[in-house]
Amino acid sequence: MTLVTLDEIRAAAVRLSGVALRTPVLPAAWSPPGTSLLLKAENLQPVGAFKIRGAYNMIAALPGHVRDRGVVAYSSGNHAQAVAYAARAFGVPAAIVIQHGVAEVKVAATLALGAEVVRVPAADRTSAAEELAERYGRVVVPPFEHRDVIAGQGTIGLELVEDVDEIDRVLVPVSGGGLVSGIAVAIKALSPRTQVIGVEPALAADTAESFRRGERVMWAADAVSRTIADGLRTPQVGELPWAHIRELVDDVVTVEEDEILDSVKVLALGSRLVAEPSGAVPVAAFRSGRLSPVRRTVAVVSGGNIDPALLAAALSRTG
Amino acid sequence: MTLVTLDEIRAAAVRLSGVALRTPVLPAAWSPPGTSLLLKAENLQPVGAFKIRGAYNMIAALPGHVRDRGVVAYSSGNHAQAVAYAARAFGVPAAIVIQHGVAEVKVAATLALGAEVVRVPAADRTSAAEELAERYGRVVVPPFEHRDVIAGQGTIGLELVEDVDEIDRVLVPVSGGGLVSGIAVAIKALSPRTQVIGVEPALAADTAESFRRGERVMWAADAVSRTIADGLRTPQVGELPWAHIRELVDDVVTVEEDEILDSVKVLALGSRLVAEPSGAVPVAAFRSGRLSPVRRTVAVVSGGNIDPALLAAALSRTG
Repeated sequence: MTLVTLDEIRAAAVRLSGVALRTPVLPAAWSPPGTSLLLKAENLQPVGAFKIRGAYNMIAALPGHVRDRGVVAYSSGNHAQAVAYAARAFGVPAAIVIQHGVAEVKVAATLALGAEVVRVPAADRTSAAEELAERYGRVVVPPFEHRDVIAGQGTIGLELVEDVDEIDRVLVPVSGGGLVSGIAVAIKALSPRTQVIGVEPALAADTAESFRRGERVMWAADAVSRTIADGLRTPQVGELPWAHIRELVDDVVTVEEDEILDSVKVLALGSRLVAEPSGAVPVAAFRSGRLSPVRRTVAVVSGGNIDPALLAAALSRTG
Repeated sequence: MTLVTLDEIRAAAVRLSGVALRTPVLPAAWSPPGTSLLLKAENLQPVGAFKIRGAYNMIAALPGHVRDRGVVAYSSGNHAQAVAYAARAFGVPAAIVIQHGVAEVKVAATLALGAEVVRVPAADRTSAAEELAERYGRVVVPPFEHRDVIAGQGTIGLELVEDVDEIDRVLVPVSGGGLVSGIAVAIKALSPRTQVIGVEPALAADTAESFRRGERVMWAADAVSRTIADGLRTPQVGELPWAHIRELVDDVVTVEEDEILDSVKVLALGSRLVAEPSGAVPVAAFRSGRLSPVRRTVAVVSGGNIDPALLAAALSRTG
């Protein structure tokens, strides 16, 4: 399996210019003396998450006559909105397959971006998307299992190397693995001494287990669904991402649910950023005290689409 | 009274480089079609508010032997923390006079920045600061009544003109008036057709009334203290700011308490930014529908230091 190259990420950066925000890197004033934590604030992207980078890059890379037929995606979360947003930017139709039971607020957000929403039972999600794609001759934009998607997410790594000197460690959430893969390609090409560490909830630690074992394992869907980090419930890291993680990522570590919610609170009150639980996971790893100390850490705050009641609950936590 | 000049703001920008964040300008994805709202996210500054710009600029402009004796400020809010932060950056002592009754969390934040905190009855605040300054030969850093402070805040206007094309309107919170004064100097010098509009809570609308009357009026302290926007409870705009506002500001408008809290919610959920009520006031004016429509508006989100219980309450609002 050929890994994504730095050149593919550079090409993605050109495509994304003016579309994805070059998100700010914000020093966390609350990081303990002697350490420096910087936050790559992907929650400030339009649609509130890094997913816009990969989705837009893949759609932009399609031949015009293919793109014009439109795109399809299956997702209930940030990827759905990213695909809808990117399709609208090109003026092409997007159909998003969403399973029954997903919160209406997420359906509404996808509809508001001009996408068609197709609701199906959970079990039919993938087949429904493929059928739609076939029927209309449309391309499916997958959430992580595609090199253009990975290259798009990798532009975060490129921006980090350009914007920050001497990064010792980058902490990145892992679900399907596209984000950490792209970032690792850019970082290891341009700053090989910088550690790239994936972070998962302990309740959805299939990639951490895969990393320890040296082979890709799958967890049960109802096991990974226990974590509050709803963006990180993928039961198995993708095949193409796994090839990158094995080769380029230094470690995959885990955090507890309490640590995730505390970090949502710290980000809101200490850094004035609204992060969803999945986006706060790298900060939780930094704050855990379980990583060896380094001078300069970057935490990728990957998204900020959080249920208001959950954010209110996180703010009410003591400590 | 000589107004602050563009050159003074340019000099401030040089001093602030590497200290104050060049805050991002974030498009609000939720702004209605046909209009564009951009958020100048000063809540992302270290210490969580624009105040770092003015405080640091004034301290940086002091002759070294004066600065070395240290500084004094009286404030319970963002200005106190900004002065403490700036003094620490120069390695000089800061004494902050805080009145009894101010929340311990704010006192703790000021202490955490290495400042000495002097607690006095509210009525003795100013005299205590002046006495301290005299006793130790220290300079008082006022929150708005100083041209170096205004010039520091004006760097926001400079950044806006450099970073954003064709701004039709800038909305700025008004309390003592230093922020809107500095921004108006930069904007009117470099983009004279851009409107600069001050925004106040209707419950603390002394400057709006002054603007209508053409003379500076004062409101009772217990009148202005009714607003939830605790950063905007100054009962009278400053004398030096007033000279700028008369000359350079296009209008001063007001918003209701409900509109302020709704805007705190919209900023958190729609733009992933934690804003304090005072920082959300310009967004409230944009959303009110009471301003004539223009194509491109910038709202200065001036700060994000909000009580967690108040943020949780804002998130629970319906609508």
